[in-house]
Amino acid sequence: MATYNTYQFKDIKLGMEQSFNVEITEETMNKFLEITGDVNPLHNDLKYAKSQGNKEKVVYGMLTSSFLSTLAGVYLPGKYSLIHSVEVIFKKPVFISDSPLSVKGKVTEINDDFKQITINVSIFNRKQEKVLRGIMKVGVLDAK
Amino acid sequence: MATYNTYQFKDIKLGMEQSFNVEITEETMNKFLEITGDVNPLHNDLKYAKSQGNKEKVVYGMLTSSFLSTLAGVYLPGKYSLIHSVEVIFKKPVFISDSPLSVKGKVTEINDDFKQITINVSIFNRKQEKVLRGIMKVGVLDAK
Repeated sequence: MATYNTYQFKDIKLGMEQSFNVEITEETMNKFLEITGDVNPLHNDLKYAKSQGNKEKVVYGMLTSSFLSTLAGVYLPGKYSLIHSVEVIFKKPVFISDSPLSVKGKVTEINDDFKQITINVSIFNRKQEKVLRGIMKVGVLDAK
Repeated sequence: MATYNTYQFKDIKLGMEQSFNVEITEETMNKFLEITGDVNPLHNDLKYAKSQGNKEKVVYGMLTSSFLSTLAGVYLPGKYSLIHSVEVIFKKPVFISDSPLSVKGKVTEINDDFKQITINVSIFNRKQEKVLRGIMKVGVLDAK
């Protein structure tokens, strides 16, 4: 059954946090390839990935970023989310063997005029290394 | 057969452009849901999406953004791409019926010290409305 948080704009407070874990597998990588058509060998050819200094094929950065969709749409604020903008910086390469990743978001600004919240985001691998940091601006829709 | 451009850093010139079209279908949406677990009803429940003023279910913004992976990894620069950072602003909602989308990138800065290029990105729906604009900073790896 689909479940998600249902925070409304009035419920959002500065400093609110949400976090969750996600798995990245070969199957996840294949689905992302099917969606995007991104056949780049860094993500698809072990030999090439190793030649560039990586222990395994590198997980698509935009696949790691895709979990920000889940952060906003399921957790913070959940149902009434509408993402306005996203900024991400990739700090370290992500490998399947470093899964699960942990995704964390914290409310750092609340804009009453736009009904928009700013969420600072970090994603960590299972060694607790930060692999991504970013900022999302998310509108909170009226309850319907 | 996997094909991609193989521009090296020395080949990249200011103003270079690449563009391509992508299809978004129900199947694409389902795959993105399976990857992310983002069960938000704006993307999954027609009735809710309509109640929020949309003609159809809204395509995940981070799904639209995922084609920036393809832009860098297949087109510009292609094989030797390593995405450092991405900023995107969602200008209009995307609907499946507005597919195909056209993805365009243009080199606007070249940093010789970091072997990094800046790509200004725009994504248009089939009505030629801009649905996303953004900036990517992409490293160009040495040829291996």
